[in-house]
Amino acid sequence: MKIASDLEGMRLALEWAGKGLYTTSPNPRIGCVIVRDGEVIGAGVTQAAGQDHAEIQAMKDARQRGHDVRGATAYVTLEPCSHHGRTPPCADALVRAGLGRVVAAMEDPNPLVAGQGMRKLAAAGIEVASGLLAAEAHEMNIGFFSRMRRGQPWVRMKSAASLDGMTALHNGQSQWITGPEARADGHAWRARACAILTGIGTVKADDPQLNVRSVETPRQPRRIVVDSKLEISPSARILEGGGTWIVAAAANPEKEAALRERGAEIIVLPNAHGKVDLPELMRELGRRQINELHVEAGSKLNGSLIREGCVDELLLYLAPMLLGDAQGMFALPALAELSGKYDLKFHEFKQVGSDLRILARFNPQ
Amino acid sequence: MKIASDLEGMRLALEWAGKGLYTTSPNPRIGCVIVRDGEVIGAGVTQAAGQDHAEIQAMKDARQRGHDVRGATAYVTLEPCSHHGRTPPCADALVRAGLGRVVAAMEDPNPLVAGQGMRKLAAAGIEVASGLLAAEAHEMNIGFFSRMRRGQPWVRMKSAASLDGMTALHNGQSQWITGPEARADGHAWRARACAILTGIGTVKADDPQLNVRSVETPRQPRRIVVDSKLEISPSARILEGGGTWIVAAAANPEKEAALRERGAEIIVLPNAHGKVDLPELMRELGRRQINELHVEAGSKLNGSLIREGCVDELLLYLAPMLLGDAQGMFALPALAELSGKYDLKFHEFKQVGSDLRILARFNPQ
Repeated sequence: MKIASDLEGMRLALEWAGKGLYTTSPNPRIGCVIVRDGEVIGAGVTQAAGQDHAEIQAMKDARQRGHDVRGATAYVTLEPCSHHGRTPPCADALVRAGLGRVVAAMEDPNPLVAGQGMRKLAAAGIEVASGLLAAEAHEMNIGFFSRMRRGQPWVRMKSAASLDGMTALHNGQSQWITGPEARADGHAWRARACAILTGIGTVKADDPQLNVRSVETPRQPRRIVVDSKLEISPSARILEGGGTWIVAAAANPEKEAALRERGAEIIVLPNAHGKVDLPELMRELGRRQINELHVEAGSKLNGSLIREGCVDELLLYLAPMLLGDAQGMFALPALAELSGKYDLKFHEFKQVGSDLRILARFNPQ
Repeated sequence: MKIASDLEGMRLALEWAGKGLYTTSPNPRIGCVIVRDGEVIGAGVTQAAGQDHAEIQAMKDARQRGHDVRGATAYVTLEPCSHHGRTPPCADALVRAGLGRVVAAMEDPNPLVAGQGMRKLAAAGIEVASGLLAAEAHEMNIGFFSRMRRGQPWVRMKSAASLDGMTALHNGQSQWITGPEARADGHAWRARACAILTGIGTVKADDPQLNVRSVETPRQPRRIVVDSKLEISPSARILEGGGTWIVAAAANPEKEAALRERGAEIIVLPNAHGKVDLPELMRELGRRQINELHVEAGSKLNGSLIREGCVDELLLYLAPMLLGDAQGMFALPALAELSGKYDLKFHEFKQVGSDLRILARFNPQ
């Protein structure tokens, strides 16, 4: 493969970053491609936390293939790190290896790091540039950047509805509103998230596993249940395999013990109304290194999360059908004034099978 | 402009057809382009009913510009007519003029005509072909073909809603759900329709003019009000300018006389339940040469039209906002089984300003 421009080099680096979509968290997914005279001589992607960053992988790849990286250009989808974390700084390694030029898609948004990696490279005489395909690089790690900047995950709420906004009949029937392609696509979005959150209502009604099935993934996202009164049954399928977090509004030692035996962890986060404090839960998930949080819940919890300002993005699948009077996606009270509406901005839409997928974001600038 | 292929010739003919979008009805919008040696020597579009068809216009255009059409190729978006209607047959005119080749996008779907025009041309030694960009040519005249094939208009129901499917608050507030671009786009769809239909509920609530304002058009679509009990006020704005059709379920000589004074026509079409017979109304509109019927009504009439199988297409503008508990687009009763759902198929979606425009069709094949 020949690289004829910086744009092509960065596109390929983004492709490499994409290979880490289901594996690198809580690290960001970063890709690196090393090019000399238009030839790709090394490429890599961030490994699991504590292991190599993309730049180190790409240099190892080049060496293994018998290439000398001295004077070559590295395309990397995030500014190389300049600090000692769980691994030594990549900027130092690039300097030692004698790279001639480093092009970064964007600077590290962490204010403690921002620009330091690039400055370190430049001080060592390496030609540097940044900002190429920055928007794409940001999208790839929107959850990581959210956690770095705001201390909480990027919250993506998924729902599937008819064209008139209904998710299920009043009697609960809801199977097969969207087609198989949309359902598989939904699993791919689950797979890229660090965690999947639902409510006790959904657990009681559907007893879901809430794991990733239609997509191959080396790791399953963590499952989280908002369950103010600790009503979940210890035999609920969402507890299978262990590691599920149950978020309650009050302690209940006996119930907690039974759930711990199933490998669950109980987090108690009450608000003043005896419910789970949802904004505080988001901050707690940030502290627990959740980058992207995928919400698949019923209209009640969906509505509460939206009302309390906890949702960044809607991922909606609209099926080409009308259901008429039925259950909506979000339980939100009637407004007295249109000015009370919740504003979003369309980010993307795409046909998936016979359905329409919409990404829309809250708090548009 | 050089024409290098049949495809380019037909694309240009379709562009010419588009120039008739607001003018040719009840005729179809047909374009014709005449090409010799890659040069466009004549072009035309159907004129108003009773005047020239596109082929005649294109040949006149060529002659006026000093070109001889003998041996040239004509691209026409519908098979040339072979019968005496309000104008003499175009096929005869093309033969007399000595065209060398005629390419039609599609044959006339009218079973009484289908293929006869092409056969007449072929019998006269003209090379013929058809089927190029047939789908696009069909879309351009979807209402005309509906009337020819089924004896009733193509019914397009427009609605504008929030992402959760709401058109207005319970207190009636609904202004500015969609943005200015979507509202102007909606007027362009009104303008191409032969008629705009609404219900007495909308007339009483909003007193709309229901004419075309945001788009320049030489003719206004006819306005139609479904008003079973003849409740409309003679001072309603929808009567301004005259020509409005009021469809009632029972005669009321006194009320009718007052409405006729405002230039309205009253059509009485009752069904067995004392309401307007909507399917019969569609047939009546077919007899009255309505090709495309644009519906802008409230959820009640919308729901009745859908339940009675009168709607072919939804034209939905979804605004990037949530309104919560409010008024929906279509009043359709709760289903007992999912199998009772109304199936559609997505035809197109497009961002218009900050809103999403969806075209979806009922009765998918």
